[in-house]
Amino acid sequence: MTTETPSPATTGRELIEPALRAAVDRLDRPMREIAAYHFGWTDERGRPASASGKALRPALVLLSARAAGGGPGAGLPGAVAVELVHQFSLLHDDIMDGDRTRRHRPAAWTVFGVPAAILCGDALVTLALEVLLEPGTRGGQWAARGLTAATAELIAGQALDLEFERRERITLDECLRMSSAKTAALLACACSLGAMLCEAPAPLTTALTAYGADLGVAFQLTDDLLGIWGSPEVTGKPVLNDLRSRKKSLPVTAALNAGTADSAGLAELLGRPGELPEDELRRAARLVESAGGRAWTEAEADARVASARAHLDEVELPDDVRSELDALARYVTTRDR
Amino acid sequence: MTTETPSPATTGRELIEPALRAAVDRLDRPMREIAAYHFGWTDERGRPASASGKALRPALVLLSARAAGGGPGAGLPGAVAVELVHQFSLLHDDIMDGDRTRRHRPAAWTVFGVPAAILCGDALVTLALEVLLEPGTRGGQWAARGLTAATAELIAGQALDLEFERRERITLDECLRMSSAKTAALLACACSLGAMLCEAPAPLTTALTAYGADLGVAFQLTDDLLGIWGSPEVTGKPVLNDLRSRKKSLPVTAALNAGTADSAGLAELLGRPGELPEDELRRAARLVESAGGRAWTEAEADARVASARAHLDEVELPDDVRSELDALARYVTTRDR
Repeated sequence: MTTETPSPATTGRELIEPALRAAVDRLDRPMREIAAYHFGWTDERGRPASASGKALRPALVLLSARAAGGGPGAGLPGAVAVELVHQFSLLHDDIMDGDRTRRHRPAAWTVFGVPAAILCGDALVTLALEVLLEPGTRGGQWAARGLTAATAELIAGQALDLEFERRERITLDECLRMSSAKTAALLACACSLGAMLCEAPAPLTTALTAYGADLGVAFQLTDDLLGIWGSPEVTGKPVLNDLRSRKKSLPVTAALNAGTADSAGLAELLGRPGELPEDELRRAARLVESAGGRAWTEAEADARVASARAHLDEVELPDDVRSELDALARYVTTRDR
Repeated sequence: MTTETPSPATTGRELIEPALRAAVDRLDRPMREIAAYHFGWTDERGRPASASGKALRPALVLLSARAAGGGPGAGLPGAVAVELVHQFSLLHDDIMDGDRTRRHRPAAWTVFGVPAAILCGDALVTLALEVLLEPGTRGGQWAARGLTAATAELIAGQALDLEFERRERITLDECLRMSSAKTAALLACACSLGAMLCEAPAPLTTALTAYGADLGVAFQLTDDLLGIWGSPEVTGKPVLNDLRSRKKSLPVTAALNAGTADSAGLAELLGRPGELPEDELRRAARLVESAGGRAWTEAEADARVASARAHLDEVELPDDVRSELDALARYVTTRDR
């Protein structure tokens, strides 16, 4: 969930960033400064920096509004709100996980301290709701309910993640459940939020939510593949990073639960105390592959994409929206794999 | 903001706790366990404990609903939501401030760790909005907007508090502004939220908000007096605790800014490195008093209570509600002083 997709969905990029900046400008100075750094708009000293982040989620919200026949601005409060919740979760997750780096830069908590970073996360999630609940926002209450439910799921997913770190072994079902909650819930919300803001009929929002839920799991599966076999230029992290940190990712969990000799070899290797040297990390990657973890993950990602696209067939959509959503679904699993 | 008022407002106590427990039961197990401990329902090992906390804020929400002619249950979602936001802020504040004790017990983060405690706070603030935005809640969107705005202010107040800790001197105006944001905003929200849920006319919610804002500042002024001169049985903290921790409380700030010889003496004493011995703490308390900090705080609290009560005169209220709100306003400043 840590890499950003360079997505083909450039929908409304020119709308999203100004709206996001305008929302963040509503915060008081100390919180605004941390947020601006975390969003990549400034460097550690507050000097302007070139923004990073591809803003996949807000683009999906705008597409979702177009799916419901809304104009370009109809989904904008939702686009801003979803991105604020996403950034809140990254800010707090980095603290909880002790991750010192985010997108090639020091994580916000290492620059501003843990207390201020906690508080900035709190401010962002609150701001997200303020944006959605602004008076006169059509469908605002429905959308706010959807976003709040997704945020609750995201938090429950992170709680599972924290719990799994303390456990030696987790099942593949548990790992998938965690990914559904931690990654897919907010993506599913992004895919339907724009339609909710346009007060679309329930069958459309339901189909879009289902599309987004599958897309989200496919996204995480691909992210986990990149975490082992992706190049550092794409992931923004060192090569083999997820094995180095012994992350219980989907390919690793699939391999460990495959019941083969290589599963046992992988378990032994990852169970060793201390940091694993580079050649052992490479051996671990080979074991994940030979135990079937890579093939399972790739097949599951493809199945999720197919399922996501099938949900779109259930509803009427403008042609250009359908093809953009279709392209996005394919793109999510094919980036650099 | 850390002591709980044993308030005379027993309004709906039998309604509030079951509703609060039902809301917390919606959380997944790990978060539910931390929340149950933090609320005082269980001990460190999850065994039932006698609940503490007087739940002033939810009682105010129910009163506020009655002020608008609502039945006993009309304000309940708001009562639960306000308490959840209050507890979220306490959970996160304890981490940020490094406070190891809350209500005579180890703070949640010392028992469950910082990551889980951060996450539990996130879960509580999200749950608060879920409760308010539930389908069919009359006035839910208005109320959710009010609560979100109050939460944003509370967060901004905590940001000011963190900033002030790094500064040598703050003005009395800055200190009052911080108290208004950190303590009074949520109390003001509590005093109007029930009326919002009853879709009361704006003049009534405005008057109730203004009453609550004054009450909130009076509450903080009194809390700060207790933090120096209160008995440990009332405050749940060691005697002279706010001087020991060199908190820039309202009486201390008033004394430091009085420009007297005692102000300078107090500044010198509090500026010393290391922990202050008991006799120096007692001397500091005397200096706060002789520099006029105690008298100013008491007078300001009385003025805020008078102002709070005056706001009630602007509107029509059921007699019993008016007298309960009146009694509460007087009570807030007279508890153990």
